[in-house]
Amino acid sequence: MKLDVEKLSATSNTIYIADLGCAVGPNAFDAMQDVVHFIQQKHTLQCPQSNTTLQFLVLFNDQPSNDFNTLFTSLPRERPYYAAGVPGSFHRRLFPESSIHFVHCSYALHWLSKVPEELLDKNCGAWNKGRIHYTNAPNEVVQAYASQFAKDMEEFLCARAMEIVTGGMMTIIMPGLPNEMPYSQLAASLMYDFMALTLMDMENEGLVSEDEVDSFNLPIYSPSPAEMASVVEKNGHFSIEMLELTNPASLVDGPVDIKAWVIHVRAAMEGMFIKHFSTDIIDEMFDRLTKKLFMFTEQVESGYKDRTQLLVVLIRK
Amino acid sequence: MKLDVEKLSATSNTIYIADLGCAVGPNAFDAMQDVVHFIQQKHTLQCPQSNTTLQFLVLFNDQPSNDFNTLFTSLPRERPYYAAGVPGSFHRRLFPESSIHFVHCSYALHWLSKVPEELLDKNCGAWNKGRIHYTNAPNEVVQAYASQFAKDMEEFLCARAMEIVTGGMMTIIMPGLPNEMPYSQLAASLMYDFMALTLMDMENEGLVSEDEVDSFNLPIYSPSPAEMASVVEKNGHFSIEMLELTNPASLVDGPVDIKAWVIHVRAAMEGMFIKHFSTDIIDEMFDRLTKKLFMFTEQVESGYKDRTQLLVVLIRK
Repeated sequence: MKLDVEKLSATSNTIYIADLGCAVGPNAFDAMQDVVHFIQQKHTLQCPQSNTTLQFLVLFNDQPSNDFNTLFTSLPRERPYYAAGVPGSFHRRLFPESSIHFVHCSYALHWLSKVPEELLDKNCGAWNKGRIHYTNAPNEVVQAYASQFAKDMEEFLCARAMEIVTGGMMTIIMPGLPNEMPYSQLAASLMYDFMALTLMDMENEGLVSEDEVDSFNLPIYSPSPAEMASVVEKNGHFSIEMLELTNPASLVDGPVDIKAWVIHVRAAMEGMFIKHFSTDIIDEMFDRLTKKLFMFTEQVESGYKDRTQLLVVLIRK
Repeated sequence: MKLDVEKLSATSNTIYIADLGCAVGPNAFDAMQDVVHFIQQKHTLQCPQSNTTLQFLVLFNDQPSNDFNTLFTSLPRERPYYAAGVPGSFHRRLFPESSIHFVHCSYALHWLSKVPEELLDKNCGAWNKGRIHYTNAPNEVVQAYASQFAKDMEEFLCARAMEIVTGGMMTIIMPGLPNEMPYSQLAASLMYDFMALTLMDMENEGLVSEDEVDSFNLPIYSPSPAEMASVVEKNGHFSIEMLELTNPASLVDGPVDIKAWVIHVRAAMEGMFIKHFSTDIIDEMFDRLTKKLFMFTEQVESGYKDRTQLLVVLIRK
């Protein structure tokens, strides 16, 4: 990949790296170690005569509600970079102008800044009764999600365009969808369909209220390469160095481990359910969900799950 | 004060400021706002023709055990700077080489990195039985504390000399002591004397063990201007722009508020007592201490407390 480290380090020996949506590690630490080694290797190749040793400051970013205490106390003792934490939403500005050389953002941009407002309007075609996601939803719902994603990405790219120096690099890894494929073909879609079914069963049994279920939607979105390309081109500040669907590390080899899958999804989403529903129904909900998925193992297995990870590498023009 | 902002902002519009020993705010936020305004004013005065607006990244530092979650969620929403947190001991390197323009360190450097080891050696002249501090202690004890402070300061200055750019500024505010004055003349010394007496009373009553009391010493030190000047000159990387004793904000006007004083000291030191003694004796200890101080109000009032705050302003050569 084209990263001109000679140019980036022309005015200073320090390379500033941002990890956006870092959570509490340890994935973030592995990724940052890889990024530092990648830049060091480029430097050695591009500046074989150079006597200077590059130094790195990694800025770990996540929402202010993230547990930075855990992040900080679990930082590797031996690491090839100085470390800082930066609280704030990456849909807004986080860093001074032209102060960052490399941005990494892994499994964070599929979280929308909010549920599209149209979904909560009973008089609107995008009213999403009976579902909690855009899988198997009418076109209006899919469109509402797609335009919220486009808006969020535009804000994200505008902020990063201000912060990243000319020639700086940004890598994005997130769930993706092949061009033209409806979301319902993905194995992952069954998870959201069955979550909705489970909640409606529980509504029928009086365990949760109709209002609670109707007003619940997951603010997550998986864009296609074409959608991502379109939003990057509209923004205009980045050239696309790489944009492709790859195999995710999980879900690929062998049969799907449904139990592990639910645990993983629960870890990521439980907070959102607890915020909306009462805490005591959460165990019940995920138990029922697991049972449903086991009953439809064949469908899960036959769902599309190969190239569902979008890898984007951008260079700041 | 001489701060050449024109020179500092020659290669970049971003000014990097570090606050070392920030705790959880809000004092740190007020101080950083003041520092930003000070630099902005200097910039306006020194570069009246400049069209560029300076930007600021404030790096809030404290030990990894500090509650950064509280710090981050209480950051002022409207602030004239971008904010980051940096976990780590300021006796070691925290930032890349030549990456910081201004360092502020308020009421943090009186904490020694550890209790001087000689104090715990029964066969050594600095064995500090019957005391928990160097006030009213033999010369060996005072010397052990003084040389630990000098060592810590040297490490601190070496690390900062690497990190601060040429022409960069460092302000230090900490408890201080007039040249040649023994610590025991300070009103504050009664606090430590009475803490020791209280602990020994409790030892006699079997509430704490002899070993526990003998091995407890407070790792805090108040240097004189002459000591501070000597360690700065020995380090050699900073010129002294200002070095003087000033009146602390507290303890000056009117009679001493003993209750408020003990609450303040307890907030700062409780953690250390809990680490060493069992939690259930702490209330008892501070209750007895308060009573003792009330009995000796006159002595507290007559102790020296005017110019006991050391203000140091250094410029990186």
